[in-house]
Amino acid sequence: MKEKKEIRVAVAGPRGRMGLETIHMIAQAPELKLVAAIDRSHDGARVADVTGAAGLDGLVYTDIDACFSKENVDVLIDFTNPDVGKHNLQKAIDYGVRPVIGTSGFTNDEVDRYRRQMDEKKLGGIIAPNFAIGAVLVMKFSQMAAKYFPDAEIIELHHDKKKDAPSGTAIKTAELMTKTREAKQQGASDEKETLPGARGADYDGMRIHSVRLPGLIAHQEVLFGGKGELLTLRHDSMDRASFMTGVHYAATTVMDLETLIYGLENILD
Amino acid sequence: MKEKKEIRVAVAGPRGRMGLETIHMIAQAPELKLVAAIDRSHDGARVADVTGAAGLDGLVYTDIDACFSKENVDVLIDFTNPDVGKHNLQKAIDYGVRPVIGTSGFTNDEVDRYRRQMDEKKLGGIIAPNFAIGAVLVMKFSQMAAKYFPDAEIIELHHDKKKDAPSGTAIKTAELMTKTREAKQQGASDEKETLPGARGADYDGMRIHSVRLPGLIAHQEVLFGGKGELLTLRHDSMDRASFMTGVHYAATTVMDLETLIYGLENILD
Amino acid sequence: MKEKKEIRVAVAGPRGRMGLETIHMIAQAPELKLVAAIDRSHDGARVADVTGAAGLDGLVYTDIDACFSKENVDVLIDFTNPDVGKHNLQKAIDYGVRPVIGTSGFTNDEVDRYRRQMDEKKLGGIIAPNFAIGAVLVMKFSQMAAKYFPDAEIIELHHDKKKDAPSGTAIKTAELMTKTREAKQQGASDEKETLPGARGADYDGMRIHSVRLPGLIAHQEVLFGGKGELLTLRHDSMDRASFMTGVHYAATTVMDLETLIYGLENILD
Amino acid sequence: MKEKKEIRVAVAGPRGRMGLETIHMIAQAPELKLVAAIDRSHDGARVADVTGAAGLDGLVYTDIDACFSKENVDVLIDFTNPDVGKHNLQKAIDYGVRPVIGTSGFTNDEVDRYRRQMDEKKLGGIIAPNFAIGAVLVMKFSQMAAKYFPDAEIIELHHDKKKDAPSGTAIKTAELMTKTREAKQQGASDEKETLPGARGADYDGMRIHSVRLPGLIAHQEVLFGGKGELLTLRHDSMDRASFMTGVHYAATTVMDLETLIYGLENILD
Repeated sequence: MKEKKEIRVAVAGPRGRMGLETIHMIAQAPELKLVAAIDRSHDGARVADVTGAAGLDGLVYTDIDACFSKENVDVLIDFTNPDVGKHNLQKAIDYGVRPVIGTSGFTNDEVDRYRRQMDEKKLGGIIAPNFAIGAVLVMKFSQMAAKYFPDAEIIELHHDKKKDAPSGTAIKTAELMTKTREAKQQGASDEKETLPGARGADYDGMRIHSVRLPGLIAHQEVLFGGKGELLTLRHDSMDRASFMTGVHYAATTVMDLETLIYGLENILD
Repeated sequence: MKEKKEIRVAVAGPRGRMGLETIHMIAQAPELKLVAAIDRSHDGARVADVTGAAGLDGLVYTDIDACFSKENVDVLIDFTNPDVGKHNLQKAIDYGVRPVIGTSGFTNDEVDRYRRQMDEKKLGGIIAPNFAIGAVLVMKFSQMAAKYFPDAEIIELHHDKKKDAPSGTAIKTAELMTKTREAKQQGASDEKETLPGARGADYDGMRIHSVRLPGLIAHQEVLFGGKGELLTLRHDSMDRASFMTGVHYAATTVMDLETLIYGLENILD
Repeated sequence: MKEKKEIRVAVAGPRGRMGLETIHMIAQAPELKLVAAIDRSHDGARVADVTGAAGLDGLVYTDIDACFSKENVDVLIDFTNPDVGKHNLQKAIDYGVRPVIGTSGFTNDEVDRYRRQMDEKKLGGIIAPNFAIGAVLVMKFSQMAAKYFPDAEIIELHHDKKKDAPSGTAIKTAELMTKTREAKQQGASDEKETLPGARGADYDGMRIHSVRLPGLIAHQEVLFGGKGELLTLRHDSMDRASFMTGVHYAATTVMDLETLIYGLENILD
Repeated sequence: MKEKKEIRVAVAGPRGRMGLETIHMIAQAPELKLVAAIDRSHDGARVADVTGAAGLDGLVYTDIDACFSKENVDVLIDFTNPDVGKHNLQKAIDYGVRPVIGTSGFTNDEVDRYRRQMDEKKLGGIIAPNFAIGAVLVMKFSQMAAKYFPDAEIIELHHDKKKDAPSGTAIKTAELMTKTREAKQQGASDEKETLPGARGADYDGMRIHSVRLPGLIAHQEVLFGGKGELLTLRHDSMDRASFMTGVHYAATTVMDLETLIYGLENILD
């Protein structure tokens, strides 16, 4: 492993669900150092006091210009909201800080506009609506496998309070698979449902099944069948800490980029 | 383990799919001894020659009366067809041979009539439409578990030539579960299918999902969800040899019975 | 379903991990009513205030005699410690309250002594070291299945902070299976480990494998192999709320008992 | 989908296990046409008569020169033995026929020597010791995932006649993973086996577990654990027909190559 320089990070939105997880993740990652947090209030307080993450030195800033002027920041991690996120992203570009943005709500045009600015400065950055690296890998591998195994079905399993079926992740996975999968209608040509719905939802000839049970959290299984063999890709998400592997990977990878990347899958190889 | 006396078996239908598997199973089971086969032709031939199962001594009979008169038979295993099966069953009762019948097509009335004859003679016997002991155990365990976990879903997975969905086994499993399961409609009360069929088939408030892929054979998974936990019961059937564990168990258990039992599940404890 | 009378419950140890889960479980169970809690301190406070479980009426008592004298209690649920648990159990017997005891540390002699007292009074009660009903069912089903499938292996999977391998549950499961399983050494007679440990731990000829990974919580899978088929029993425990299905079942079942039962498996049928 | 020209195939070793599967696969693949077979005997016979695969037109040749001189062959598929395989490969190069070789036993030097000849002619070819495309994908995906999830364990499951543990595929998978995985010793630093072997075999700090049961065929599961999540990659091989997806893919892909590729994984993208 090559030697790694400590990366100096500021976190925007340190008291939100994801921001707080990020603070705790940084506290345990030796190659990352929290230098500041950007918050709506608590200007000048210690991040450790505001978040309960003991042993962190950085201070809270309510003004991002002040933060970037006074502190030496390599990377901004932002889990705020679309409006604040865009504002913070522009400030990061202005100050030459590499942005890692976890808020959704960016249009293609907006991403292009930010990318052009960053390309000029050769500044790396990442915007990702989903940091669950395992879930992203299952999507990526599914797209790769569908080329060789056009017969596939998706089973997604979630807690029984979930309202929509299939899950957004299942639909996105199926969509990615259609890019490589030879189009075909699966199952026997004369198959018949004696109970309607048994064969699941039809997505371009593939089937998607949604299981809802108490005890489940968020799980997805993609099954590929070929003559005499079965390939299964599965992701189990137990809690939102699962996003932190991806945030950590983004925060270190962004140091080697010279452009803005949209989507975690595009920095996984 | 208690000492076991060798059980003397005759097989009817020795060249059919299931009969031939039975012959091979007996050839490898030290506590079973093949003494004869009953077939439509090949009278007087050696079973070893007719079936290719080397090392078996018994002879083929086309006349079941001749077989039961000349040979000392403890158990008849019959995999023929409904008409021949009923004829053979009656002959077994007449000669005091314990029948293990794998053919379907018996009405409740017929079973009752045979049982009365056998009760008088205190003669044990088994009729079972399904000898896959693992599949029968999953049904039995599912019925037991549904009492404690009313939230359950069934996923059955078969090869993609299968025409009907859900499978007969899945429906029978769901039916057994309703005997112990508190009736309820599962899933969120306001759940919504954005792709129709995603939530599977509805059976009394439970959901059944049917997966069809090349490479699959015959598989069933029953998932039970409770607060913070998941119980999964799964059966994978790889080939029809899977019926032989159940045939072997029936052939040995029938020696200790004094009545006619219908269904393998009723001799499993 | 038969109509159920509301069951009046007191909880001892309401601020401990399991006691607090019990309080929350009762708050959501229409057939259970919390009438009091027994605690070391907070005498006279409202249980709702002490536990944060809004909407509960009962009061806290530090004196169990006072509690049982003043309140009409059907069932005592105790998650304290061995010493306090024994004291509370004796008091419950004295006052004719049905005990559900979740503390371990009872010797067989002690259980016998309490049982004799309760038999005289025809008073029902349950002591259970493990209330995870799914885990207990997997053990029970494994014992049943081992009779028909003597070839079995156990895979238990836990988080990577766990120190001992195999888990206590895996060893208990294996132990129960030996009661019904025909003793045999599994695997090829001439099998060879090219990397030592690959075939797992040997328990009476069966193999146990322990997986340890971050992200895992507490999981166990028992695989049974027969000719051409595989039976798999799996339990996933996601958090300690998983014990509550068993506590709820015990609290309602105890109303119909007239003796003391040790072990949740003995009230599951 | 782009239009595909029919590919003219000759099969060497048409009566061996794999060769016969290949013949049957070609009979069902519209884009492949069997034009000849190369065998030790039966010169001049019809392939259909020798193999029982009805509806095939080609003839059997015992002399590969005669075959390649008389027939217009695009691709040679060879499942013979190392010596014959090398001879056939050289002949294919000489006649400008693209080779797909399934025999093992090639040294790196030999592969290099053949590759140089083929590069000069811009002739495509593939040598692959393993054509199970699903198994190869699991290896490839495992190598990719290990970069992000250094905590991983392998469970491989096979029938109970298998002698060696772990399987060769498991060891090869682990070896590939070490190329991307940050080296670390997994599990708790103070973990302890109360039954020796429970934690499986150690491969560079990762653990490998080998399950052996009747009913199983050939299966492998690679588990990756991260904070709050689990990624599982699984391959089930039900019978040797599973190699045919890979042979078919190689026979069509080789048409677009201009060099010799070693290993199926290097033509999967």
